[in-house]
Amino acid sequence: MRVKDEIKQDALFEATVKLINEIGFAASSVSKIAKQASVSPATLYVYHKNKEELLVSTYVRIKQLMGLSVQENFDDRQPIRDILKQVWANIFSFVAEHPAYFQYMEQFSNSPYSDLVNKEEVEAYFEPVIRIILTGIELKIIKDVNFDILSAFIFFPIMALANPRHCKNFELSQENMETAFNLAWDAIRR
Amino acid sequence: MRVKDEIKQDALFEATVKLINEIGFAASSVSKIAKQASVSPATLYVYHKNKEELLVSTYVRIKQLMGLSVQENFDDRQPIRDILKQVWANIFSFVAEHPAYFQYMEQFSNSPYSDLVNKEEVEAYFEPVIRIILTGIELKIIKDVNFDILSAFIFFPIMALANPRHCKNFELSQENMETAFNLAWDAIRR
Repeated sequence: MRVKDEIKQDALFEATVKLINEIGFAASSVSKIAKQASVSPATLYVYHKNKEELLVSTYVRIKQLMGLSVQENFDDRQPIRDILKQVWANIFSFVAEHPAYFQYMEQFSNSPYSDLVNKEEVEAYFEPVIRIILTGIELKIIKDVNFDILSAFIFFPIMALANPRHCKNFELSQENMETAFNLAWDAIRR
Repeated sequence: MRVKDEIKQDALFEATVKLINEIGFAASSVSKIAKQASVSPATLYVYHKNKEELLVSTYVRIKQLMGLSVQENFDDRQPIRDILKQVWANIFSFVAEHPAYFQYMEQFSNSPYSDLVNKEEVEAYFEPVIRIILTGIELKIIKDVNFDILSAFIFFPIMALANPRHCKNFELSQENMETAFNLAWDAIRR
């Protein structure tokens, strides 16, 4: 059973995602978010210093959930290609199952608030995946290029494809997902 | 010399981009946008039916500018790989030179307003590039897969890499751009 604190924090988290997606950053005040979460503004301030901190921690929590989701069925004894295929499928499922989180992430990443994020903390949630890619580079299986470039081909295309606003007529079938992974793999393999 | 109409329309366009990026969709009213553009709300309504139409036409205009930019130095007598490399460099330059347009596009694409866009109109601005990719598929140079999947590897990675909010420490050097293009090409070629 969850303690009362956690229930309130969850409510604040979901309320923040919902309100920002509906009315944007500027129009979302602390009092509106508290109201949406059915807590008092005073309660909100127990958990969050101010609006900025609430927005940042909401983003970080989504990244944490995504990091956990990405590592489902993660087995680093498997071939690197198979591990990355599983990661690919996991990202796809996460975005498809949580469009609201994804919408929040996209808006947040393109807002000035993203400058306030502790990048090391967020990266740590994806550490096992990063480690696998670095191992692949060492073993000369994956191209030895800038990590941002590799990320742009392993993480971004699948997020774009899973986003119904970007790809309206794209069918999220198993076949399409495997085809897309083949392109990603051809991009990064040596 | 530009006519007075064009000057006002340009001012409204730039004001919309600036205000949306600064305070978001919900907080940006027609009167605030008119004020930012130094025109009266009545003048704004001469050119735009309402806020929705203004937001959509601003997005479509950015796509149009991007489409024109993407086709710079476009020579369809060159090998397909070279043409796409030029397109890649052009997208990169456009995003790097117009971060405000890009920020608007990203926010807009992830907002409910994107449902109001005439997709055929926007696609038409990229027709020469789409034609080259289809020719590449016909000639068995490019993989014969879903067009959305190809797009996710030709267009999305470069937009992610050129976006300073996504890739903070990524250096926009000629070398990095060519490396990234090699990955894109390996993804889509047969």
